[in-house]
Amino acid sequence: MEIAILLYEGVTALDAVGPYEVLHMAPDAQVKFVATRPGLVRTDFGMLNLNADYALADVPNPDILLVPGAPDPGAAMGDEAVLAWLRDAHATTTWTTSVCTGALVLGAAGILVGVRATTHWMALDALGQFGAQPTSERVVRDGKIMTAAGVSSGIDMALSLVAEQWDTPTAQEIQLIIEYDPEPPLQAGSPDKAPAAVREGVIAKYGAMLGG
Amino acid sequence: MEIAILLYEGVTALDAVGPYEVLHMAPDAQVKFVATRPGLVRTDFGMLNLNADYALADVPNPDILLVPGAPDPGAAMGDEAVLAWLRDAHATTTWTTSVCTGALVLGAAGILVGVRATTHWMALDALGQFGAQPTSERVVRDGKIMTAAGVSSGIDMALSLVAEQWDTPTAQEIQLIIEYDPEPPLQAGSPDKAPAAVREGVIAKYGAMLGG
Repeated sequence: MEIAILLYEGVTALDAVGPYEVLHMAPDAQVKFVATRPGLVRTDFGMLNLNADYALADVPNPDILLVPGAPDPGAAMGDEAVLAWLRDAHATTTWTTSVCTGALVLGAAGILVGVRATTHWMALDALGQFGAQPTSERVVRDGKIMTAAGVSSGIDMALSLVAEQWDTPTAQEIQLIIEYDPEPPLQAGSPDKAPAAVREGVIAKYGAMLGG
Repeated sequence: MEIAILLYEGVTALDAVGPYEVLHMAPDAQVKFVATRPGLVRTDFGMLNLNADYALADVPNPDILLVPGAPDPGAAMGDEAVLAWLRDAHATTTWTTSVCTGALVLGAAGILVGVRATTHWMALDALGQFGAQPTSERVVRDGKIMTAAGVSSGIDMALSLVAEQWDTPTAQEIQLIIEYDPEPPLQAGSPDKAPAAVREGVIAKYGAMLGG
């Protein structure tokens, strides 16, 4: 199984690396990090650079396509070469997936028309602009398209995907290897659970960016 | 706050990127990825390269030190320059932390003698070799040393660390931004919860590596 993870300027590292860590352990999985140009890709806050080992043209027909998000995914949404690659790849994928605002990138490529999909909770409204049916769930599957909510949700999505594409024991093995038995020390991981002041603070800081 | 995350050949990406994604969002946090030599660092399965922007000598006195793990952390444990840097940095850190078998690297540097600490569940026994008190909890704090269990546990640790060093609302904001409201689709994330056949399969495949 060839798995392409798209990288682009300003991408959020955990959106890509969370699912990567799950998917690469599946039997015969070969994960390829791809970008418009191979080489270093600067993540969203400038403190971490991930390397794209492959150009888009090197991986035209991945079995699984994964588009991570960014606080501002404009570098991908405005890049016609990326959108064309996504459309072409999607035509033959077994699974087309996104994490966080990666769904907006899929949307900009025209892939989500009429599709139930999710994204970061602050970007759900923006998703509607692309004809998708915004769905406030952590992982949403509609046919071969699987989308995940904000940032960390890509781990949950990837485990679901492994269980679907491979089998449950394989997903369980991977979950145990990465010791994914989460114990968040606080309970503020969704807008419903976070205190109102926290939620409003986050919207004030980031809402315009993610809703754009 | 200067935060140094050590990279080395064969490191597990999520061990580093999980806590990075939390820590870099704390006010005035500056995360620096460091390695013996700056440049690309190959992660454990050869499919992803992370960049170390800094050499060890560039970041001699980080406020927070984080050592991620690896299936085989030998490249760090056997590198005297790394171990000396860890010892020197630890002398003046506010927090010294590890994820997964990063604790073995701290142990090899002599930092865990008499310290309650945790690591990947398959490496707990190995941790005892360094004089640590292996403790089977997801996040363990002993004074300024905070250690996390396997791979994905670094996210929980980093949120605890932000709550301690900054404050609870800051940690809650970050948790909400990264939408860390985990919903694992399966319940196999710890050796107690996984089916016996899954646990035995994982031990057969990886036990020797992690226990070494």
